[in-house]
Amino acid sequence: MNLILLENSDFVAPGRAVLFGRRHQHISEVHRAQAGEQLKVGLVDGQIGSATVLYADAERIELGVSLQQAPPPGLPLTLILALPRPKMLKRTIQHATALGVKKLYLINAYRVEKSYWQSPWLAEDKLREQCVLGLEQAVDTAMPQIELRKRFKPFVEDELPSIAADSVKLVAHPVTDTPCPVDIDTATTLAVGPEGGFIPYEVEKLQEQGFSSVHLGPRILRVETALPVLLSRLFPAR
Amino acid sequence: MNLILLENSDFVAPGRAVLFGRRHQHISEVHRAQAGEQLKVGLVDGQIGSATVLYADAERIELGVSLQQAPPPGLPLTLILALPRPKMLKRTIQHATALGVKKLYLINAYRVEKSYWQSPWLAEDKLREQCVLGLEQAVDTAMPQIELRKRFKPFVEDELPSIAADSVKLVAHPVTDTPCPVDIDTATTLAVGPEGGFIPYEVEKLQEQGFSSVHLGPRILRVETALPVLLSRLFPAR
Repeated sequence: MNLILLENSDFVAPGRAVLFGRRHQHISEVHRAQAGEQLKVGLVDGQIGSATVLYADAERIELGVSLQQAPPPGLPLTLILALPRPKMLKRTIQHATALGVKKLYLINAYRVEKSYWQSPWLAEDKLREQCVLGLEQAVDTAMPQIELRKRFKPFVEDELPSIAADSVKLVAHPVTDTPCPVDIDTATTLAVGPEGGFIPYEVEKLQEQGFSSVHLGPRILRVETALPVLLSRLFPAR
Repeated sequence: MNLILLENSDFVAPGRAVLFGRRHQHISEVHRAQAGEQLKVGLVDGQIGSATVLYADAERIELGVSLQQAPPPGLPLTLILALPRPKMLKRTIQHATALGVKKLYLINAYRVEKSYWQSPWLAEDKLREQCVLGLEQAVDTAMPQIELRKRFKPFVEDELPSIAADSVKLVAHPVTDTPCPVDIDTATTLAVGPEGGFIPYEVEKLQEQGFSSVHLGPRILRVETALPVLLSRLFPAR
């Protein structure tokens, strides 16, 4: 937790927040913060700043909060990701959030096992928990928007054209001669397949919508590794 | 397992290997391979090729093996990594291996907790297991060399000069104005700190050895995310 993420509901008065539970525990146990100490904080979808510990006991911690700095810019990216297996989903959401993804569609694909859609980790509050962990890690406050789309074809044919309008459209697909471009740093829609990749029909459907295939070299990477690789090739470290 | 990694000891005759245990189970359960089917295989530190299932039962699988292709080139990199916490160590070794790291020093640093050095995952055979998983994932055969160095100063002062000789020397360190360079694609020694980073004394020690600090942008990333980001910035996808 490199930043304590605050919600509007944590505030009991302007500039004054009270925390219980997970964040209270973290501040007590990891920061061992006592009255007078400073912590880095940020408000969800708001600014970053610092907080002074005003009071702390075994159950709650009271902070004097001053916010004055904008969060780091998000990536100019819409990520279209075939739903990963539940265990990997959590880490992938955390990584994507930490890397600055702000718009994410989790979609179906032929090689996405049906059971993955039953995962309790897809509940809105569970996804948000993973996003919070990613923001706290990366010192960011801007909550990603995550949308679920359980049907591939209607999504790609009916929704994707307007989602991807006026952006560079790429699909990560090992079977191509075009390497992933570097530092394009412009509005981009990137589609990433499931383990085993998109099937040829799915790649064709994406190509019909203007998507170009790009590869990451001869190595086959897990989604959780491929994602940081793709995003850090496409966008400069600012 | 995108490639079944074979050891010399698996061969019962030239071109003929017999597998039990984990790989047998994987081939039976995931590939559901029966006699006559083809699998992608590779020999540790040798070539990649294909195998035909000659015989399979509940306990063993016999393969006719033909190897003819070189593995993908490794990265021209020596990675100096502060020992991560045990849970992250496993994934980090797998990721690094999948990304093509062939030389890795796990070193001590001020912010590496002493208990991490007691982890059973640091045993040679356990590290090798994680490397095998990384190679099987990435379709590679060249086993990384991993060395452990429990003392920072003697390592940096006495060993590092010859390890890093004639290479670009970089240390990932958020407190600098220099972003990580892109596609340098030349012999490189890269030092990556623990959670919380190297302390200033450690960065100075590395600078004395010619290391330059580079950053990855304003976001603080976990080691397991920072590593794919760094490696994919430094080296092109070939």
